Amino acid sequence: MERYVCGDCGHIYYSNPKVVVGSVVTHQDKVLLCRRAIEPRKGFWTLPAGFLEENETPEDGAKREAREEASCDIVLDALLAVYSIARLSQVQLFYRARLPEPRFAPGTESLEVKLFAWEEIPWTELAFPSVRRALDHYARTKDREVFTPGSNPEASQALPRFGGASGTAPG
Amino acid sequence: MERYVCGDCGHIYYSNPKVVVGSVVTHQDKVLLCRRAIEPRKGFWTLPAGFLEENETPEDGAKREAREEASCDIVLDALLAVYSIARLSQVQLFYRARLPEPRFAPGTESLEVKLFAWEEIPWTELAFPSVRRALDHYARTKDREVFTPGSNPEASQALPRFGGASGTAPG
Repeated sequence: MERYVCGDCGHIYYSNPKVVVGSVVTHQDKVLLCRRAIEPRKGFWTLPAGFLEENETPEDGAKREAREEASCDIVLDALLAVYSIARLSQVQLFYRARLPEPRFAPGTESLEVKLFAWEEIPWTELAFPSVRRALDHYARTKDREVFTPGSNPEASQALPRFGGASGTAPG
Repeated sequence: MERYVCGDCGHIYYSNPKVVVGSVVTHQDKVLLCRRAIEPRKGFWTLPAGFLEENETPEDGAKREAREEASCDIVLDALLAVYSIARLSQVQLFYRARLPEPRFAPGTESLEVKLFAWEEIPWTELAFPSVRRALDHYARTKDREVFTPGSNPEASQALPRFGGASGTAPG
């Protein structure tokens, strides 16, 4: 494991995996997406999501990201998915969330925020593969109170008992 | 947010929340526990668990921890729970896992590794509150293929729709 060591004092800085928290937010069957104002993937559509901060629960982090990126207050409903990208040392926690009132506006990291009916979602202009994956898992499970959270395709193989239930490849 | 800055070169080292990965591992209805050989809580019983490393998926991390602490190969079955401790900037992912063969031995961080029948679990000698919480959620959900992963009591309030189903306080 590579470690940053300060050349001055020898202090070791552990470089840890990063936790991303975000939400699939809906209001009357429409999905909230944000068009990114920053790189990477500037101009592409994403879910309100970002890095979990120190001393923050994942639930609070997901709500903070919705406030920062879409200026809205959301109500979390369930853990939707846990994805990971080993190459980037990222663990991503997505929640299913409701927007009680259709009040939102772009934050500084968004060019535009919009509610999309399912058939209007700009599938070819989504910012990241996990956005598509989270939306697909949302569609598969939205009418269920109890469901298996989404996971990586690789992880579904590691979790064979549930591979059939939650491991359908995004279309 | 506090940041480490190298006094020599000014490089900022982001201090991120840490991800703990672990498992409730069973073999024929018995639960595998490890008696800690290291502080904190040396001498107390815990689940095989530890910090996720860089470039590792949580699933691989949970399997590695079982190898390191209990010298055993486990098969993951489902995401059991996601807990967090904001004060410690920790996000904890616990999996439900099977031990196909009852072969295990203490690793360097364990004094002893043992399979416990449910009524033999040393409840008063468990190392951390989340061990008790994960075991309780395991007991509530062990016969279900599809279930809501456990979450913090606080988070259950943040997820009101599922508060009744998964928010029962540990007894």
